[in-house]
Amino acid sequence: MESPEAVVTVADLGEFGLIAAMRALLPAGHAQLLGIGDDAAVVRAPDARVVATSDLLVEGRHFRRDWSGPVDIGGKAAAQNMADVAAMGATPTALLVGLAVPGDLPADWVLDLTRGLAEESAAAGAFVAGGDVSAADSVLLCITALGDLAGREPVTRGGARPGDRVAVTGALGGAAAGLALLAAGLADDLADPGLLSLVAAHRRPRPPYAAGPRAAVFGATSMIDVSDGLIQDLGHISEESDVAIEVDPGLLADSAVVPAASLRAAAAALGGADWLDWVLAGGDDHALAATFPPDAALPPGWSVIGLVRAGNDARVTGRSDVYPGWEHFRR
Amino acid sequence: MESPEAVVTVADLGEFGLIAAMRALLPAGHAQLLGIGDDAAVVRAPDARVVATSDLLVEGRHFRRDWSGPVDIGGKAAAQNMADVAAMGATPTALLVGLAVPGDLPADWVLDLTRGLAEESAAAGAFVAGGDVSAADSVLLCITALGDLAGREPVTRGGARPGDRVAVTGALGGAAAGLALLAAGLADDLADPGLLSLVAAHRRPRPPYAAGPRAAVFGATSMIDVSDGLIQDLGHISEESDVAIEVDPGLLADSAVVPAASLRAAAAALGGADWLDWVLAGGDDHALAATFPPDAALPPGWSVIGLVRAGNDARVTGRSDVYPGWEHFRR
Repeated sequence: MESPEAVVTVADLGEFGLIAAMRALLPAGHAQLLGIGDDAAVVRAPDARVVATSDLLVEGRHFRRDWSGPVDIGGKAAAQNMADVAAMGATPTALLVGLAVPGDLPADWVLDLTRGLAEESAAAGAFVAGGDVSAADSVLLCITALGDLAGREPVTRGGARPGDRVAVTGALGGAAAGLALLAAGLADDLADPGLLSLVAAHRRPRPPYAAGPRAAVFGATSMIDVSDGLIQDLGHISEESDVAIEVDPGLLADSAVVPAASLRAAAAALGGADWLDWVLAGGDDHALAATFPPDAALPPGWSVIGLVRAGNDARVTGRSDVYPGWEHFRR
Repeated sequence: MESPEAVVTVADLGEFGLIAAMRALLPAGHAQLLGIGDDAAVVRAPDARVVATSDLLVEGRHFRRDWSGPVDIGGKAAAQNMADVAAMGATPTALLVGLAVPGDLPADWVLDLTRGLAEESAAAGAFVAGGDVSAADSVLLCITALGDLAGREPVTRGGARPGDRVAVTGALGGAAAGLALLAAGLADDLADPGLLSLVAAHRRPRPPYAAGPRAAVFGATSMIDVSDGLIQDLGHISEESDVAIEVDPGLLADSAVVPAASLRAAAAALGGADWLDWVLAGGDDHALAATFPPDAALPPGWSVIGLVRAGNDARVTGRSDVYPGWEHFRR
């Protein structure tokens, strides 16, 4: 074991030393005109409009350092923001990263987090354009993602029409099941690759970035990043579009987005949880849900799971449960 | 006094209730194509490039709730980010706001902070396009500001050349003096309007937003937002431009950017502090410093304070002091 004296902390490097070490791990992107190191970055916005979204990740609330490593935390922070860009039908171009950390945190932890940010940005075709570093009592990440629409109209939550088909792409349920395994203390002893993949899904979502712009090209009438829970997020489409959304649990359970066998195994390992609840109400997978006109061909990789009707709620055929999703100030 | 039971907290409103109440206080801006309420905002970027910068403000480190009210904290957070945009020669267009707060914080505090954000954005011609709200143990703000260059090249820190004149606009020294008065416990008993204006300068910087783009039009070769301390920030220009910068303390002290009489009065009230130190090393005023070619006319409102020479440091004629500026992980 390394002796504690050998650990270089964030305070050892200092603000400017830390930024220099992070910067060395962050490659330029194709949208970069001016990168890290000036008062602000300059990023290409070829469409003359820029898509922009911000998310906070707070230690102990959005992640635990004992449940996730820094590469995954950085990757997940980047992923959840870029999934929001994709859900508008846009392509991610750049990230800005606000990072607050305790001074006694090992500098390597921050550098691994930076590697995760760099890796995930590159996977989506984006880059880290700038940010800020500050001291704080616990770790907090604030990411802003920018994106380009390439001439398309943004796909909002407000365009679904009765008769449209509801479809999803990406993955659903795995992150919530993985979190349940971690919370039950079972994650360290898993050998089943299916169960391990659920824990991995919690630690590191893999949003289908390219599917967002492609759905826009195929005529998606509305779209959302599934981050709070499928039914709650479809509820946002229902509200903004003033329609009802009905999800068929059979279509959903059989769809390619649901790792049903692994979810069933996890439910058994946890003594009989309702695995479909992870799919309907679990967050953090960052699948995309969208609505498509009745006569439109669906892009490859999307599964139809339901229908848009006249009305004003989102529900699951044959279920009366309410799906509250995530509330940050829950007491 | 209001009874504690009557105070509506952030947790009482809940995440979605809080966001709705904040949203009602945030007007649209001229750059808004799609505002708060979808997965991401869509902001005009007419130049086909977007200037982007992020800053964190952490309670107890960047502000104290007992020293500054929420309107000023929101205004300052917006101001410091938009000053970075202006320092590139760009015009602020939009802000994204990440806000972490304890659930037991009065909702009115957050709404007043929102008013400060709205007020300052509007003063710079920008608007709040989106953001995120989360629970945390103390207040943390993370702002991203976007801006437009209107066809101009960005003014970086790297273009100063020997022979250029160094000039500043805005205000210098007041914020640091105001902070010193607050730290000494003198701020509550002040009657002198000059001293009160210093405390106000700490609580609410007034960056000269329009001066940034105008300096670009007048041919500024380099520019920086003075946030860490004048000499330290000029040191960044020195480093990136590979030049020496020499500031004439006489020119500086007599310039329109320095409220010399109030600073002298504050120094006396504090038992003889060196008031020029607030000007040279104090942060938080968000003045702009720039270099202009020897033969260029200066835009209105700028004061020449020194000269660019061959060399590689930033110093003050006749002073050998080192000006370390702000370091977040100082121990």
